[in-house]
Amino acid sequence: MTSSAPVAPRPATTAPPTNPTTATTAAGRPTVVSDQVALRRDRLSAVLHRLRDAGPRSRARLAGDLGLTRSAASSLVAELEERGLVRRAGVERRRVGRPGTTVELDGRRVVGLGAEISAAHVSAIAVDLSGGVVAEHRCPVDVARLGPLGAVDLLAGLVREAERGVGAAGGTVVGLAVGVAGLLDTAREELVVAPNLGWRDVPLGALLRDRLPVSYPVAVDNDANLAATAEAVAGDPARRDVVVIYAEGGVGGGIVAGGRLLRGRHGYAGEFGHITVDPQGRRCACGRIGCWETVVGLRALLDAAADPDDRVHDPAVPVEERLAEIERRADLGDARTLAALDQVATGLGVGAAVLVNALNPAAVVLSGYFATLGRHLRPAVEAQLAAGVLAPDSGGTHVSISSLGRRAAVRGGADVALAAVYADPTLVPRRAGAPEGAR
Amino acid sequence: MTSSAPVAPRPATTAPPTNPTTATTAAGRPTVVSDQVALRRDRLSAVLHRLRDAGPRSRARLAGDLGLTRSAASSLVAELEERGLVRRAGVERRRVGRPGTTVELDGRRVVGLGAEISAAHVSAIAVDLSGGVVAEHRCPVDVARLGPLGAVDLLAGLVREAERGVGAAGGTVVGLAVGVAGLLDTAREELVVAPNLGWRDVPLGALLRDRLPVSYPVAVDNDANLAATAEAVAGDPARRDVVVIYAEGGVGGGIVAGGRLLRGRHGYAGEFGHITVDPQGRRCACGRIGCWETVVGLRALLDAAADPDDRVHDPAVPVEERLAEIERRADLGDARTLAALDQVATGLGVGAAVLVNALNPAAVVLSGYFATLGRHLRPAVEAQLAAGVLAPDSGGTHVSISSLGRRAAVRGGADVALAAVYADPTLVPRRAGAPEGAR
Repeated sequence: MTSSAPVAPRPATTAPPTNPTTATTAAGRPTVVSDQVALRRDRLSAVLHRLRDAGPRSRARLAGDLGLTRSAASSLVAELEERGLVRRAGVERRRVGRPGTTVELDGRRVVGLGAEISAAHVSAIAVDLSGGVVAEHRCPVDVARLGPLGAVDLLAGLVREAERGVGAAGGTVVGLAVGVAGLLDTAREELVVAPNLGWRDVPLGALLRDRLPVSYPVAVDNDANLAATAEAVAGDPARRDVVVIYAEGGVGGGIVAGGRLLRGRHGYAGEFGHITVDPQGRRCACGRIGCWETVVGLRALLDAAADPDDRVHDPAVPVEERLAEIERRADLGDARTLAALDQVATGLGVGAAVLVNALNPAAVVLSGYFATLGRHLRPAVEAQLAAGVLAPDSGGTHVSISSLGRRAAVRGGADVALAAVYADPTLVPRRAGAPEGAR
Repeated sequence: MTSSAPVAPRPATTAPPTNPTTATTAAGRPTVVSDQVALRRDRLSAVLHRLRDAGPRSRARLAGDLGLTRSAASSLVAELEERGLVRRAGVERRRVGRPGTTVELDGRRVVGLGAEISAAHVSAIAVDLSGGVVAEHRCPVDVARLGPLGAVDLLAGLVREAERGVGAAGGTVVGLAVGVAGLLDTAREELVVAPNLGWRDVPLGALLRDRLPVSYPVAVDNDANLAATAEAVAGDPARRDVVVIYAEGGVGGGIVAGGRLLRGRHGYAGEFGHITVDPQGRRCACGRIGCWETVVGLRALLDAAADPDDRVHDPAVPVEERLAEIERRADLGDARTLAALDQVATGLGVGAAVLVNALNPAAVVLSGYFATLGRHLRPAVEAQLAAGVLAPDSGGTHVSISSLGRRAAVRGGADVALAAVYADPTLVPRRAGAPEGAR
């Protein structure tokens, strides 16, 4: 499924860039055109991707990798160096000193921002092109009570704070993508409904632009879509076809197919949390009965694990601490906690089996709070897949735990912002005093 | 999701063909190479697609459509005419007589074969490049009782019969794709398990090649995958992102995303029939409890609609006739039949809502027996989508009824066979006495 959604997954995990010598007619057929500028841009993009995915290497090796002449490769590397996107690794790191020095990504100057509005927190992160975290801010807060305007104000504050961190490190922000826990009309950038926030028809894109009149592009997306984008790890073929199940306040997810986030007709794909799994079950925040979220959402876990007056229910305590408490009790062998985890894990596996029967992904990735408690959840999920998937050996689908945990959505947002630079390195201006020696 | 499955959807509904001037390195980055043969092939492909998708037109208009010079367009058209793939329409049909005659697809000579092994029938069809059915054979039979060898023998006989029809019409068979109602390891061409046939580990590809030692390519695939491929109608953007639910003996389906069939890691995607929808429900042919198939499969409908001794249960009566009888009773207002249809349609809608929440397709296409009874099923399916999909207006997803009905899988098989010619028209040899005037 595709849509005209404004954000895209990391370029290396998508199809190769627009071909330098073709354009597409209305009927979708390629036609041959001459476009030296586009050719150069796509070759710059290819060099940048290669350095990211395959690591530092010499110009000669890059030329061989990409089927370019040595002089073409040298010219491309020189331009990327002028734009502050690559640097000589041999000189700067290995001090080899010979002419054929290796080059490597130099992402320190170029920074993407990701941010998230979830039920229990607002967050922002600044990530440079090589994946380093430059700044990170997370504010635990009751977002539903804060309201859309308050949440956007808070988010704008965190973004400004992250910008300051980027500036102090000598970097430049190239874009921001904001994830929100709700159903987004990505074309109009409107939040249609956010069951766990109690919001409807919020013009999120307009609000953000009003509060953040910045020069770089700002995109909005569903938080779970961003979390799924973050999992489509650059250069990792095992992550090109995955189903990501993401839980924060609610439960959502994303389908990555062939390295691309599957968005659906209007960008609404991945609403796993509202799949009906128990028609005789509990009422969901969305108003329906028996949604998967009512079985595996954080509230379901906490309700099963502890009485209402237990501190794990206290909204004043950050979710991190409450989850740590659950984990502590599980590690101590507390029967009620273990039973609650088993109940959630079983429900998680039953729903995951539905997705695996339909999609046969390489992996089901547990993200958000499912990742935090992943080692306690995974065995029962695997058992349910083995029982519920028609194909032998669960269709070859593995259950993996996101290493990004509850940071997945903000990381995905930064990835989206950086994707534009990978697709078109000329977005980053040349520096005035670029080193001549690189040519 | 993607896999190394041997069959592909129609080329016009997939990505544009391999670009003429690029190749791909191991890392998936494009590099520029010179390949005049590939360039010519892809231009021929582009002309063929254009004529199929946009209809007859002059060489000048084709040149404009595809960004080619007029002389290049004329040369490509001449070659396609020599290969019997296009013809002058102005002369042959409209008798206009002026030099700038239009050209159109001439698919009569080039024929793809599709075949199917389902629970209650074995079928074969021959379809020419312009979509005309050249031959069709359908044999109602209890396939489970026949066994794999018997079924393949029967299928080979029907294919030979179809070949004779193609030969009599002056056509040439360019390929065969066989759909089977079961889980296929597409790489090894083995039927892993077919719950409704009671078969396991059948080396279907090898059996077919043994019984059909033909010169054209033979592919095997899941029947529902082929049915879904058939729905990804050439040039119809509304069918580029659809979920196809296909029921014959069992229930399966396919997800078409961006015009491509989503196959999953090992080709097992689309096993919708074995999604658990009712953990307290009936045992499925696959051995599990409460699979969707037990709620919406043909057996569930017939069990609800009539007593065991009713003729609609008689395996000796072709399924077509039994379905016609159900339809007749529904049209007469028979309460039990209407209740059975409502029960199945409700179950169909509940499961469809799961898929729509996850995938947000442009359409859910009812295929196979669901299409035959489509007008009785659609209203309740639509109502369940409206109730069960989180996104407003069912996420913009329409419920549509396949016009191919129970022919969908065989048509999809023929489409797959023909796709190779659309991708590479040079697969069809030049004719000795091709008309010179076309140049």
